[in-house]
Amino acid sequence: MNVAVIGLGLIGGSLVQALAATEHQVMGFDADPATRAVARTAAARAPAGARWQVTGALRDAVVIADLVVLAVPLPALPPVVSEVTAGGYRGLITDVTSVKTPVRDLATAALPPDGPRYVGGHPMAGREFSGFPAAQPDLFAGCAWVLCLESSGTLLADWLELAALVTSIGARAVPATASEHDDAVAAVSHVPHLLAAGLATAVTGDPLAAALAAGSFRDGTRVAATRPELVAAMCAGNATAVRQALDIVLANVAALRSALDAPDPARALHPLLAGGHAARGAWPPAPGEPVVVAARVAPLLELGRAGGWVTAVAPDRRTVTAVRPAAQQ
Amino acid sequence: MNVAVIGLGLIGGSLVQALAATEHQVMGFDADPATRAVARTAAARAPAGARWQVTGALRDAVVIADLVVLAVPLPALPPVVSEVTAGGYRGLITDVTSVKTPVRDLATAALPPDGPRYVGGHPMAGREFSGFPAAQPDLFAGCAWVLCLESSGTLLADWLELAALVTSIGARAVPATASEHDDAVAAVSHVPHLLAAGLATAVTGDPLAAALAAGSFRDGTRVAATRPELVAAMCAGNATAVRQALDIVLANVAALRSALDAPDPARALHPLLAGGHAARGAWPPAPGEPVVVAARVAPLLELGRAGGWVTAVAPDRRTVTAVRPAAQQ
Repeated sequence: MNVAVIGLGLIGGSLVQALAATEHQVMGFDADPATRAVARTAAARAPAGARWQVTGALRDAVVIADLVVLAVPLPALPPVVSEVTAGGYRGLITDVTSVKTPVRDLATAALPPDGPRYVGGHPMAGREFSGFPAAQPDLFAGCAWVLCLESSGTLLADWLELAALVTSIGARAVPATASEHDDAVAAVSHVPHLLAAGLATAVTGDPLAAALAAGSFRDGTRVAATRPELVAAMCAGNATAVRQALDIVLANVAALRSALDAPDPARALHPLLAGGHAARGAWPPAPGEPVVVAARVAPLLELGRAGGWVTAVAPDRRTVTAVRPAAQQ
Repeated sequence: MNVAVIGLGLIGGSLVQALAATEHQVMGFDADPATRAVARTAAARAPAGARWQVTGALRDAVVIADLVVLAVPLPALPPVVSEVTAGGYRGLITDVTSVKTPVRDLATAALPPDGPRYVGGHPMAGREFSGFPAAQPDLFAGCAWVLCLESSGTLLADWLELAALVTSIGARAVPATASEHDDAVAAVSHVPHLLAAGLATAVTGDPLAAALAAGSFRDGTRVAATRPELVAAMCAGNATAVRQALDIVLANVAALRSALDAPDPARALHPLLAGGHAARGAWPPAPGEPVVVAARVAPLLELGRAGGWVTAVAPDRRTVTAVRPAAQQ
């Protein structure tokens, strides 16, 4: 496949390297000249058989592509979508941002009916560091990569094309609607960023506490090191789901807070803590044996809802190989 | 020094190995025969010059000791203190539990006036795994080890003896009152455990969310893997400080929650997230150059309040070498 990757940050920079290491032709674009310079140096060092190109002209990347991957932050998507379509591109588009409903709505509004097709994507492979220097070709190995599949609106062939691509670089292709995705990541990704910020802020001006902070503080605040504008954009773009998920966590913590007021706090805390302990012990769920699933919308969405993922797409595109959590088989 | 370590879990098991690797004579006791068997196997494999002993009789460990380290969980402390004093021990006692005010009160009540002296301690070296098999001799290298120092009540000579001991195995001896310690660890250790439990519980019954959970969920919930009874005991034993610290974090998170309701959530979230980002970026504080501090109560407590720690005790016990955060020098 000829793939154009627009944006060479952590995800885009990792993706060009991962795709180039398979049989794909890859061209990367970034609007920032300094990023392009760093990326060109890395590209020049790529081994034979894993070569890729960098361009400073978005149209040059897009004109020869079968697939355009928009790897820019959420706020940058609207102008980039306009530029890609203005260049006459008519192929398949995907993105890698952490919120899917607003991007689906943007694509529906911005893409002409006879123009490019859009399938939303999101690799769950963030790090607290961003930018090309943090990129690594194996970033997606074993990571869940959501590919959005709607009951209507997504061409199944496009979905399977992308599933074949992301599984070829070792990712787990997870089928989910944009709305299901947004609810799930609100709970497991966006809310943890808000808790981390709230916890990190609490040691400001307390040098003794900062000196005593160790593993539980380090891990509980790690993602507070993420650039605030990225976290603000992803939470704001998914505000409804984040509110809902945050309220559930806040209710859990409020129950723990009440238990501290009980006559016997240890006894009152224990069952609540045991619930969290059991949930953490069951995660990540052990993968079951590979099974074959029909490459149709309903069974694929059912697979995603059950916590499963696609590991390979059959060459005839009529079935996929899939894995579910072991307990559910 | 002849050191008896009572309890061979993660901390006690690591401590016997760390002390034995310096010039100390160490005997370990555990009430559980299976733990003693595992510990004896490890002791038999210790290299020459780092030998230590295991006993199944607490009195045998205590009778020859200059120092008794109580490395049992908080709820087990009262009977163990009784047993140590009943054995006629009159030397120095310390402990390693994560709450210091209740242990200080227990010691004040339980120890006869002419009996053993007590100095509370707490190495900030927890892991989510417990038990002797998780122990490692280098667990305390670079870790903050609080040693309680009260304006009255602690014999300075005892404090310095313990500071010399813990710095000899690479720990940072942090002077703090029991109450200062409890407030600080409520914020940086106990509250993170409650947030982790609240977050982990939220994915129960949501297989898609569990499948998409990645780094931010993994780190934000890591300490939910700690045994619930240990977390319940430490939070209950420090309930007042934990309530206070949790309310501060909940207020921070409530502000983020309100920002999600603002007309422009990204703009409203940004300054709050930037505060957390700055706090995380400033942690851990860079250590300054070593300085010499008088070995007296007031300057030592001032050092701890400023986020500093003792790295060595002078042989004449009149001064200590100390490090403060770089920005404060």
